Amino acid sequence: MQASAVVLQRFNQPLVMEHISIPQLRDGEVLVRVEAAGICGSDVHMWRGQDPRTPLPIILGHEGAGRICQLNGPRRDINGRTLEVGQHVLWERGVSCGMCHYCQVLHTPSLCPKRWAYGIHRSRSQPPYLVGAYATHMVLDAGTVFFPLDEADDPAVMVMASCSGATAAHAFDMTLQRPGDTCIIFGPGPLGAFAVALARAGGAEQIMVVGGNHARLELCRSLGATHLYDRHQLSTADLTAAVRKATHGRGADLAVEASGSVDAMLAGLEVLRPGGTLLMPGMGEPVGDATLPPFELIVRKNVTVQGCWVSDTRHTHQAISLIRQQPEAMAALVTHRFPLNEATQALQAVKERRALKAVLLPQE
Amino acid sequence: MQASAVVLQRFNQPLVMEHISIPQLRDGEVLVRVEAAGICGSDVHMWRGQDPRTPLPIILGHEGAGRICQLNGPRRDINGRTLEVGQHVLWERGVSCGMCHYCQVLHTPSLCPKRWAYGIHRSRSQPPYLVGAYATHMVLDAGTVFFPLDEADDPAVMVMASCSGATAAHAFDMTLQRPGDTCIIFGPGPLGAFAVALARAGGAEQIMVVGGNHARLELCRSLGATHLYDRHQLSTADLTAAVRKATHGRGADLAVEASGSVDAMLAGLEVLRPGGTLLMPGMGEPVGDATLPPFELIVRKNVTVQGCWVSDTRHTHQAISLIRQQPEAMAALVTHRFPLNEATQALQAVKERRALKAVLLPQE
Amino acid sequence: MQASAVVLQRFNQPLVMEHISIPQLRDGEVLVRVEAAGICGSDVHMWRGQDPRTPLPIILGHEGAGRICQLNGPRRDINGRTLEVGQHVLWERGVSCGMCHYCQVLHTPSLCPKRWAYGIHRSRSQPPYLVGAYATHMVLDAGTVFFPLDEADDPAVMVMASCSGATAAHAFDMTLQRPGDTCIIFGPGPLGAFAVALARAGGAEQIMVVGGNHARLELCRSLGATHLYDRHQLSTADLTAAVRKATHGRGADLAVEASGSVDAMLAGLEVLRPGGTLLMPGMGEPVGDATLPPFELIVRKNVTVQGCWVSDTRHTHQAISLIRQQPEAMAALVTHRFPLNEATQALQAVKERRALKAVLLPQE
Amino acid sequence: MQASAVVLQRFNQPLVMEHISIPQLRDGEVLVRVEAAGICGSDVHMWRGQDPRTPLPIILGHEGAGRICQLNGPRRDINGRTLEVGQHVLWERGVSCGMCHYCQVLHTPSLCPKRWAYGIHRSRSQPPYLVGAYATHMVLDAGTVFFPLDEADDPAVMVMASCSGATAAHAFDMTLQRPGDTCIIFGPGPLGAFAVALARAGGAEQIMVVGGNHARLELCRSLGATHLYDRHQLSTADLTAAVRKATHGRGADLAVEASGSVDAMLAGLEVLRPGGTLLMPGMGEPVGDATLPPFELIVRKNVTVQGCWVSDTRHTHQAISLIRQQPEAMAALVTHRFPLNEATQALQAVKERRALKAVLLPQE
Repeated sequence: MQASAVVLQRFNQPLVMEHISIPQLRDGEVLVRVEAAGICGSDVHMWRGQDPRTPLPIILGHEGAGRICQLNGPRRDINGRTLEVGQHVLWERGVSCGMCHYCQVLHTPSLCPKRWAYGIHRSRSQPPYLVGAYATHMVLDAGTVFFPLDEADDPAVMVMASCSGATAAHAFDMTLQRPGDTCIIFGPGPLGAFAVALARAGGAEQIMVVGGNHARLELCRSLGATHLYDRHQLSTADLTAAVRKATHGRGADLAVEASGSVDAMLAGLEVLRPGGTLLMPGMGEPVGDATLPPFELIVRKNVTVQGCWVSDTRHTHQAISLIRQQPEAMAALVTHRFPLNEATQALQAVKERRALKAVLLPQE
Repeated sequence: MQASAVVLQRFNQPLVMEHISIPQLRDGEVLVRVEAAGICGSDVHMWRGQDPRTPLPIILGHEGAGRICQLNGPRRDINGRTLEVGQHVLWERGVSCGMCHYCQVLHTPSLCPKRWAYGIHRSRSQPPYLVGAYATHMVLDAGTVFFPLDEADDPAVMVMASCSGATAAHAFDMTLQRPGDTCIIFGPGPLGAFAVALARAGGAEQIMVVGGNHARLELCRSLGATHLYDRHQLSTADLTAAVRKATHGRGADLAVEASGSVDAMLAGLEVLRPGGTLLMPGMGEPVGDATLPPFELIVRKNVTVQGCWVSDTRHTHQAISLIRQQPEAMAALVTHRFPLNEATQALQAVKERRALKAVLLPQE
Repeated sequence: MQASAVVLQRFNQPLVMEHISIPQLRDGEVLVRVEAAGICGSDVHMWRGQDPRTPLPIILGHEGAGRICQLNGPRRDINGRTLEVGQHVLWERGVSCGMCHYCQVLHTPSLCPKRWAYGIHRSRSQPPYLVGAYATHMVLDAGTVFFPLDEADDPAVMVMASCSGATAAHAFDMTLQRPGDTCIIFGPGPLGAFAVALARAGGAEQIMVVGGNHARLELCRSLGATHLYDRHQLSTADLTAAVRKATHGRGADLAVEASGSVDAMLAGLEVLRPGGTLLMPGMGEPVGDATLPPFELIVRKNVTVQGCWVSDTRHTHQAISLIRQQPEAMAALVTHRFPLNEATQALQAVKERRALKAVLLPQE
Repeated sequence: MQASAVVLQRFNQPLVMEHISIPQLRDGEVLVRVEAAGICGSDVHMWRGQDPRTPLPIILGHEGAGRICQLNGPRRDINGRTLEVGQHVLWERGVSCGMCHYCQVLHTPSLCPKRWAYGIHRSRSQPPYLVGAYATHMVLDAGTVFFPLDEADDPAVMVMASCSGATAAHAFDMTLQRPGDTCIIFGPGPLGAFAVALARAGGAEQIMVVGGNHARLELCRSLGATHLYDRHQLSTADLTAAVRKATHGRGADLAVEASGSVDAMLAGLEVLRPGGTLLMPGMGEPVGDATLPPFELIVRKNVTVQGCWVSDTRHTHQAISLIRQQPEAMAALVTHRFPLNEATQALQAVKERRALKAVLLPQE
């Protein structure tokens, strides 16, 4: 049996459709038909060669959902139910070792030094070859965790839980929200949109979003944002004044850097109230240096700055729940859907920020 | 100047309208016109003599909102703004000493041994006399915290934040919710209704309410409940089966005893998943003994049982925010409004459970 | 190659020495020579048939340390270093599935429904047979976690980390201690002794131990206890008075039920201050019912009751560290050492409470 | 009655002894005889005019302990006991409003916008004049919290709890330690010494201190430090290598910036393990800018950076307990004691880093 996959062979070049023989499954491996593969901002970076460690040739795609096709030995989903052929599932994008200090003592498998992710760390040229979601089929490792999908779940929407949803959930999982908080989010992309949903699911009364794209800001409103700020029209000083005015002079309880920019990080520190928290899930690759006065922005304000790197199954679970709690508003985030052979166009749409979230549908 | 107040002179007898001279304010005291006074279940207990320490004669009413009438010296609200005559405010029902180990070291002023509450601990016969909200005016202590109310806030709805809202918020403040949780609440009264709002504000995906009154259960649905269970029709075993079915066999993450009954406490422990938490804000007075197998229900299940007694300003703040986030659904909880001279009828309506929440409007 | 093991063939009868062929290792399995096997109180219960689910015939022993003897395929220890033949190790007594909601979402592998432990859940009659530590050799599962031991570590002392140490650490891991706290521990057995070390490692200023055995109480003193109470000489009322006197009238911040008795649970609730926490790691099997007034002991006091069931690798790590921080005082807890063929006498010594901690040395 | 005080009249000039009439006490004020006044590093900064907002003329001294001399109206200590003339006490250096969002809702009185501290914010020229501890007497505000001292407590040692001890405790209060952690502390001054005690009281197995002064490092060892590093001899790269070697390649769980330098902040981020925490209690005044790569040092490592500003009563309580748990090792930190009329020499000794901790004894 053969699978089709679009392969990144050379940076900055169109992906190439290849036909790949599906290998014999090893113990515990699972073959899936991919029904939806999310295009992530970091896929664009890999495509453009901005992460030179990318193991070419590679099948991109770390966000995937689909149907169980074949199993080698019994496997269970996250709820302990036996996986069956034909079942709809979403899989955890990362695989951790499960046996080290990070996995077992710290309970932070996202920090496991042996963690690897589909579509990022493994090459198309090593068995089992089909380890990226830009393909009709994937061979999933014995260490992969499976979430069952319901009939009501649209795989193209659910894949957002895999990476942006889970990463945002990871960030929020490291802080403590209380009802009535004011939360401000920088960047109305997929990460920022999930941050809005998370702020709401944490009881925030005021949810502010700062961005440059009107349509994206409005999507955030539909998810629960109460204040939208156009970053082209407000200086940081203006923004700080606006946040203070809305918070009796105090500042925001929680700020989220979801745009991957140093400016947003610094603005986040500015608009926080004393004792507030800055979550930083937004930076997916090096952004250079930040220069800031630590006494004034961190110590004297007694703030918490929380770095956030990738995520684990706990957070995917939370992100799935967020989608199911607001399925229609979440579905609106998926602005573009492409067949597999238009993967390069999909990357282009994300690169040019035409798409908020683009998803490949490899079975179409 | 004179105030009017309905006074509990003898247990189980109608309250008696009295006209009381408003005393000279002492340093830091504030005179308010009461615009809304909530009737709490514990008022009924005091009325009926079920708390024999009640200092007769007493003006009941620990839940109050109104307008600033007179100040002796400058005072500030919770946001640091100077209080002005005519301003709408809601006041914290309890006053703690602010100087002891509980207030200063543990940061739990609700446990301060010197804490006292309006309408509960002080008699109408001691100056400044007007220390209960079943009155046209109150004299508020220099240690009282004030929340400003907006024009959009209905005082009769906001007073719910004072006691049931704040107590429910206190309970939830001692646990940790995560998006996707399943929460089950026993008792659809005011406390349970706020528990629904808090579960929702904590990201719960499934919010179950168990009660005996159809109308109350439906009000909980409007606040976010997803599953309603009639306790007259389900045994604890049936309920446990239903909760397990909805949670992949696990049980609820969080259970809330909001009915004040030992049966609810035990059912809460039964329906929890291993590692779950039972919050217990519901018992306002002695309920006798509970008999339970601690190994099976607590140790082997690794559960947390969290007692919850009254609340502090932190929780009133949260409860106010919950009302502002869903003002219409919250307003529907106030099923009965009475003028001051019908206070006895109001107590009766609560006692007979005709009213979900009854509120006195002393200026009408 | 043959191993020797003492097998529990019939309840209440002496264990029987058997010679068992060491099976071929399956993928990832590890053969170890057992150098120390702790005798746990629950081993006595199994021996006496008090846990009728015990899968006879069985090799008891869930607490073990020893040397790597043979590997089938590369394996790593908790620090990511490759395991080598001859290396000293301590292994995690439980094996969880690593793939379910408890393991992956809740990060509580100790609650995994598929968790099993050496020496408890598997019979000597099923491959790989050697799954209890009362033996010269064990075959450890591919899912077993390994801690490296240093030359300075005495295996007979370190095995205490496996079960009593880790369980106590699990209990403390679910609460929050602060410097200056007062902690009271009921039961000066191995669990209680580790609770003393944990209270100290949490900054407690006063560490009280309640017990009936003078020598055990004194061992607790050497680990950091500051107040010792003889339960034969103090009523609960006396104890409550003593605790209050030492805490400015407040009561203990933290109480630990480490004796497995309902009386200790109730006394723990009595001596807590408002807002205090009762940890319950002590009950290893059913103890019947407890009868208590929930309003007075839990709700009005706003206390937390925290059940605690077994433990995971995180807690074994902590317990190992506690031993290394006070090696001499910890070594004194191991009051009895026996060769393998005296395992029945060892169980007898624990049953009769002659031994605080008894350990088998199967290589002697 | 007259008091004597040494007054900072002009920056960089010797303090001037003045004789000041003790004013009539207002409601709730307390007159104390000062028995010990700690010299804090920030006193040196004020003396040198490095904080130009200093309200000259001023009596410095925010760390004080002494005896109750006179009361105007009944007052209670932190344990609720009535204060009596002649009683030994230590007082909280800061006074917060107790009524605002920070005090009442967030439970962070240290962030109260109205907070002021003795010896820092109020001038000697405003009543009640005696509001700094470099004096024989002080008039303490009605909002001041009192801790009783025991006969065994040396006031000159206990005053360290007021500021450096409490500030370090505040920092640790915002993180979560677990037994077995590795903690590294930059700066072996008073703050760093308390950080050592706190790390130990949090169960740390390895406590590393980085500093430039051999004697100070050795004092840290006596408090529990296990590894001492001379910053003159190790580059950050060397230090990182040493920390990694001691932690199986991972890095420190907790780093504490207790030196007030940007270099220490950056080194702290370098030596942390993924998921570790950097506490920042060390910067008492502006230090300029820090330039760092946020992706590499914060986001990719998933670390927490926790600013820490001053402290509240909760932390003073903890610091007092830390001193009482190791009184001799703590006493050794007080390297210099001076009579009141040598206050300028005392400041000089701190400025030149001859003294680790210098204390004035105004009654000698």
